[in-house]
Amino acid sequence: MNTLFIGIAGGTGSGKTTLTDHLYSHFGDDISVVHHDSYYKRQDCSYEERCRTNYDHPDAFDTDRMVADLQALKRGETIQCPVYDFTIHNRTDETVTVTPTKVVIVEGILIFQNAALRELLDIKIFVETDADVRILRRILRDVEQRGRSLESVVRQYLATVKPMHEQFVEPTRKYADLIVLEGGHNLVALDMIMQRIAGHIAQV
Amino acid sequence: MNTLFIGIAGGTGSGKTTLTDHLYSHFGDDISVVHHDSYYKRQDCSYEERCRTNYDHPDAFDTDRMVADLQALKRGETIQCPVYDFTIHNRTDETVTVTPTKVVIVEGILIFQNAALRELLDIKIFVETDADVRILRRILRDVEQRGRSLESVVRQYLATVKPMHEQFVEPTRKYADLIVLEGGHNLVALDMIMQRIAGHIAQV
Repeated sequence: MNTLFIGIAGGTGSGKTTLTDHLYSHFGDDISVVHHDSYYKRQDCSYEERCRTNYDHPDAFDTDRMVADLQALKRGETIQCPVYDFTIHNRTDETVTVTPTKVVIVEGILIFQNAALRELLDIKIFVETDADVRILRRILRDVEQRGRSLESVVRQYLATVKPMHEQFVEPTRKYADLIVLEGGHNLVALDMIMQRIAGHIAQV
Repeated sequence: MNTLFIGIAGGTGSGKTTLTDHLYSHFGDDISVVHHDSYYKRQDCSYEERCRTNYDHPDAFDTDRMVADLQALKRGETIQCPVYDFTIHNRTDETVTVTPTKVVIVEGILIFQNAALRELLDIKIFVETDADVRILRRILRDVEQRGRSLESVVRQYLATVKPMHEQFVEPTRKYADLIVLEGGHNLVALDMIMQRIAGHIAQV
C-alpha cells in the first residue's frame, strides 16, 4: 500500500489535536491517527516518582517502538498500539488495533525531533501559536477538563513544559514543510491539507 | 469569473520569486502574476534623490492603484499594469496588459501590510527564510546580476532593508494562512499549493 504519512507537530496548546480531529472526522476510515503520547514509556516506579517524570523530554517516549510500528503500517501490517493512562501516569496492559490505511497522521510535540521518525513522514506540518495563547488553552484543558489545580499546572509549565519546548520542540520547527498558524481554526490551511489528502486517497 | 487570489509575501531573498515562477511556469495561461514592485510610485525628483528613496517602506508603493487593478481583474476586466524601471528608479510610460485569469498571484514583501489588499487574497502564503540566507541571496543577485557594488548593497541593507523588514514585513507574517520555509525549494509545500490551484482551475 502507498501510505501517505503526515506529521503534525507543535507546542502544547498549539492546536495540533484540533487539526488532527478535523482531518480524522472528515476522512474517517481512510485515515489512522497515531499519537506519540501513546508511546510514553512504561515506568516501574512509585506514583509519586511518576508524577515527577519530565514528560516533555524526548527520553520519556518509546520512539523506537513507534517507528517500528509505523514501518509495519507502511508495509501494510496491522499494529497493536500501546495505551497510556494519564490518570496513573503509566502505560496500561491494553493495546489498540490499528489497521493500515491510505493516510496515517502522526501527532505529537516531539515527532520531528527523532531522525528516523522524520524520515518516515511525507508531509511535516508544524502548528504555530503564540506561547500566551498556548498556555491559556493548556490551563483551561487541565483545570476544567482534567480537574488539576491551577498552581500545579503553572508549576509544571515553568519547570518542564516551557524549557523543554524551547530546547526540543521549537528547534524542530525548521524541519517542517509547512507552518500553519493557529491550527484547526485556520480554514484556508485546513482546506489545502484536505485537498492534498483527498488527492492521495483518490489516487491510491 | 471566480478568481482565486493567492498572495505570496516574505522578506527580500526569501524565495518568493522562485515560488511564484514555479507556479507560473507550471500553470501558464491560467495564472497571472501581479508584482507589488510594478506599482512603485512615479517620482518627479532627480536621479540622486530617487537613489535615496526608501523602497522598503509602504509609502513607496501606489497600493491603492494596485488594489483597484486587482478588483478590476476580479470583476473580469483587463487591466493595464504599470511598468517600473529599476535602472532609473522610476515608473516608465509603458504598461503591460493583464487579462483576467482563473488564478492571480500577487507577490511582494509588503502585500499583507495593506488591509484592503489582504482582504482580496483568498490564500496568504508567507515565505520564511533565515535572515543570513536572505542577505546572501540578495548580495549574489544585486552584485552579480545587477552589477551593483558590494558596499552599496550592504549600506542599503543596513540603512533601510533590514529596519523596514523588522518594522513592516515581519509583523505581517501573522496574517498568513500558511508559512512556507525556503520557498521554491520546498517541494512538499509546492506540491500542496499546486494541488490547490489545480483543484480550483478544474472547478471553474
